[in-house]
Amino acid sequence: MIYVSRKEHFNAAHKLYNPIWSEEKNIEMFGPCANANWHGHNFELIVTVKGTPNPETGFVIDLKKLSLLIRKEIIEKVDHKNLNLDVDFMFGKMASTENIAMEFWKILAPAIKTIAPDAQLHCIKLYETPRNFVEYLGE
Amino acid sequence: MIYVSRKEHFNAAHKLYNPIWSEEKNIEMFGPCANANWHGHNFELIVTVKGTPNPETGFVIDLKKLSLLIRKEIIEKVDHKNLNLDVDFMFGKMASTENIAMEFWKILAPAIKTIAPDAQLHCIKLYETPRNFVEYLGE
Amino acid sequence: MIYVSRKEHFNAAHKLYNPIWSEEKNIEMFGPCANANWHGHNFELIVTVKGTPNPETGFVIDLKKLSLLIRKEIIEKVDHKNLNLDVDFMFGKMASTENIAMEFWKILAPAIKTIAPDAQLHCIKLYETPRNFVEYLGE
Amino acid sequence: MIYVSRKEHFNAAHKLYNPIWSEEKNIEMFGPCANANWHGHNFELIVTVKGTPNPETGFVIDLKKLSLLIRKEIIEKVDHKNLNLDVDFMFGKMASTENIAMEFWKILAPAIKTIAPDAQLHCIKLYETPRNFVEYLGE
Amino acid sequence: MIYVSRKEHFNAAHKLYNPIWSEEKNIEMFGPCANANWHGHNFELIVTVKGTPNPETGFVIDLKKLSLLIRKEIIEKVDHKNLNLDVDFMFGKMASTENIAMEFWKILAPAIKTIAPDAQLHCIKLYETPRNFVEYLGE
Amino acid sequence: MIYVSRKEHFNAAHKLYNPIWSEEKNIEMFGPCANANWHGHNFELIVTVKGTPNPETGFVIDLKKLSLLIRKEIIEKVDHKNLNLDVDFMFGKMASTENIAMEFWKILAPAIKTIAPDAQLHCIKLYETPRNFVEYLGE
Repeated sequence: MIYVSRKEHFNAAHKLYNPIWSEEKNIEMFGPCANANWHGHNFELIVTVKGTPNPETGFVIDLKKLSLLIRKEIIEKVDHKNLNLDVDFMFGKMASTENIAMEFWKILAPAIKTIAPDAQLHCIKLYETPRNFVEYLGE
Repeated sequence: MIYVSRKEHFNAAHKLYNPIWSEEKNIEMFGPCANANWHGHNFELIVTVKGTPNPETGFVIDLKKLSLLIRKEIIEKVDHKNLNLDVDFMFGKMASTENIAMEFWKILAPAIKTIAPDAQLHCIKLYETPRNFVEYLGE
Repeated sequence: MIYVSRKEHFNAAHKLYNPIWSEEKNIEMFGPCANANWHGHNFELIVTVKGTPNPETGFVIDLKKLSLLIRKEIIEKVDHKNLNLDVDFMFGKMASTENIAMEFWKILAPAIKTIAPDAQLHCIKLYETPRNFVEYLGE
Repeated sequence: MIYVSRKEHFNAAHKLYNPIWSEEKNIEMFGPCANANWHGHNFELIVTVKGTPNPETGFVIDLKKLSLLIRKEIIEKVDHKNLNLDVDFMFGKMASTENIAMEFWKILAPAIKTIAPDAQLHCIKLYETPRNFVEYLGE
Repeated sequence: MIYVSRKEHFNAAHKLYNPIWSEEKNIEMFGPCANANWHGHNFELIVTVKGTPNPETGFVIDLKKLSLLIRKEIIEKVDHKNLNLDVDFMFGKMASTENIAMEFWKILAPAIKTIAPDAQLHCIKLYETPRNFVEYLGE
Repeated sequence: MIYVSRKEHFNAAHKLYNPIWSEEKNIEMFGPCANANWHGHNFELIVTVKGTPNPETGFVIDLKKLSLLIRKEIIEKVDHKNLNLDVDFMFGKMASTENIAMEFWKILAPAIKTIAPDAQLHCIKLYETPRNFVEYLGE
C-alpha cells in the first residue's frame, strides 16, 4: 500500500454565522470570523489516495488525472467564490474547515474510483491558513 | 544603512469591480476576481524599515514595537474584513494589491517616525497569494 | 472523526548534556549539541485534536481557544527561555525534542478537555529545525 | 512510541517510459514525463523512525547518525544522477515516485537497525515536487 | 512606481559541461553537475514588472495575462525538457542558472510590452534549488 | 551584472543585554530577549554576490565554493554556539541581527575576493525568525 498525494489551492470568501442565533451570540461564538461582510482565505487542499502501484506504469494513480479531477470537481466550484453563497454543496451548512473537508470527501471518494478503480481516497487535508488545518479520513 | 523587516498577515475578502463599468465589462477585465459575492485571501505583509543601528541597542528599530504598530495601524483595520466594504481608507478605490500596498505606505510612513525618529519606511511588500505579490517603495 | 491542528512557535535555548557523564563522553554522544554555552532553535509546534464537529458551530474545537490555551500552558513557559534552566517541567530531563514533546502532551491532554470536553489530544508534532522533527501520539 | 523524522534532499533526472510500449503509447500514458531527453526534480526525502527514547540520551535515534546514514545509503547514489541510467537499484523498474520510495525502504529498513537496534523505520515520504508526493509504510 | 511579481515553476534536466574541455576538466570544474547522464531541478521563476497602476483597474499589469504569457513564452519551452538538448534558445550556451535567467529576460522584456505597453520587465529571479538562486535586472 | 545567492543556516543561542544598563532597564528595552539564561534561533543566512558570468563556466561564482567558504568562515564559528560568549567577532557588541549581519559582511567581503576575484559581495540577508530579518549592503 502506497499513499499518493496531490496539493491544489483555491481562494474563497466565507463567514462563520449560525442563523438560528442572534448577532450577539454569533460574535461571541465566532469573533471576527462572523464579520457580516465576509473575510477570506487562500485554502490549500491536499488529497491523498492509497493503493498499490500498477506494474506497467509504476503509478497508484496518475497524478495528472487526479489534479484535473480535483480541479473539475472541487476547485472550479469554490475558487474565487463565496463558500456560504455560491457553493451548492455547502448550502445550509456552517462553512467551517471541518465541514468543507467532509463535503469534499463525499464528492471525491466516488469520483476517484472513476479514474483509478483499484485505488481509494485516504485523506482530505485542508489548510485554512498556514497555522490552522484539518484532516478527514472518511469516518 | 541596514534594512530591517517584519512580516505580519491578515485574512480578508475583496473583489475587483469598477462601478463605472457594466457587469459584462467587469467580468471581461477581472474574470473570477469580479465575483459578485466576493472571494478572499491570506495576505502576507512585509514592512521594511531602513536606518543605522542604535549603538546602545543594536537596533535600527525595535521589531516588537514595529509589530505592534503594524497590528494597530493596519491589521486591526483589515483582518477578517471586507476590503471593499469595511476599510475606510479603501473606500472609492479599486481593491487591487497595488492600491492596498500604496495605502498601507501612507499610513505607516509617518507612523514609523513616531516610534523610530531616525529610521524610515523603505518598502511595503504584500503577497495576495504565494505566487502574486507587489512591492512599493514610496515613489 | 476529524483531526484539527493549530501551529504555534517559540524560540528557546537548550543543550544536550547528561550530567552523569564526563565532558568528553557528552561531546562524543551529542557533538556540538553539548556546547557548554548553549545553542537554540525556532521551534514549531503543531497540536492536533480529534473529535466530531459540533453541529451548531461546525467546530471540533474552537481554534482561537486552542491557540490561547497552547500559548498559556506552553508558549509562555518556553518562549525566549532556556529549556534546561528555566522550564520547571523539564528539570532533571534531557532536553531532547522527544522529551519536550512528551512533556507537552502531559500538559495539553488534560487541558484540552477543559475547553473541548468531547474532543481529545491526538498528536504533538515538534520541529526543532525544518529538517528535524518528532511526533508523539500519547503512547 | 515516538516518531522521529529527518529531511534530506537530492536533485536527479528521470523519465517515465515503459520499454514494452511504443513511443506513442508512452506519450499517451505519461505525457511530458516521457520526454526522451529526460527532465528532473529537486526531490525532498523525509525518513521517519519509531521507537522509545533512550533514557540516557533522550533520543529514539541520533539524528546526526540518521542523516549520515541516509546520505551514505541513498543520497550519494541518487544525487545529481539519472534515476533510470545511473542508479543500480532502479534498473528495470519504472522510475515513478512510488517505486523510488519502495526501493529506499528496502535499503533503509535494515540499515537503520545497524545504528539504532531498538528503533525501526516507520515511513518514507518522498516529494517529487512541492505538490506531488508519496508515503510508504513498508506494507 | 510599483513592482508586481508572478511566480511560476518548471521541472527540467540539465548538466554543466563545456565541450571544449576534457571530461576530467569538466568534472574538476563542475563536480557532480557534470554528470554525463544529466540531473534535474524543480526551478522556481519569479518575474517582476514595474509601472504605475492603471486608475481604472488598479493594475500595473494583469497578473492573469502575465501568467499566461510566461507559460506560453517560457514554461512550455522548458518544462519537462532537457535544457541542453531540447531548448533552442539555450543551444551552444552553458546551462547555468545565470545564463538561463538572461535568456528568459531577452524573451520576456519585449513580450511584456505587448500586453502592458506602459510597464516594463524589472527582474528575473530564478531558483535552481531553494538554496541556490540568481537575479537579473537586464544590465 | 547578475546577482547570485546561496542560503545557509545555523542554530545559535544569544541574548540582548547591554551591560552598562541595570537589569530593569534591559528588561524594559529588550523584554524576553534579555532573558538571563539565553534563548535561541534557527538563523537563515542568504549571501548574495554580484558580477558577470564567466563565459567558460556560465558562473558569476561557483556556488559550491561559495557554500564551502560561508561554512568555513561563518557557520563553523556560529553554529551550535552562543553568539555572546563563543564568537570572537561579536565580543563587546550587542548580539542584534543587525550587528551580526554587519560582522558577517566584514568577514565575507574580502574572503569572496579570494575565490572569485571579479565578483563582489552584494548583500547579507539574515533571518532571525521567518518573520524578523535584516539586509545589509555594505554601506
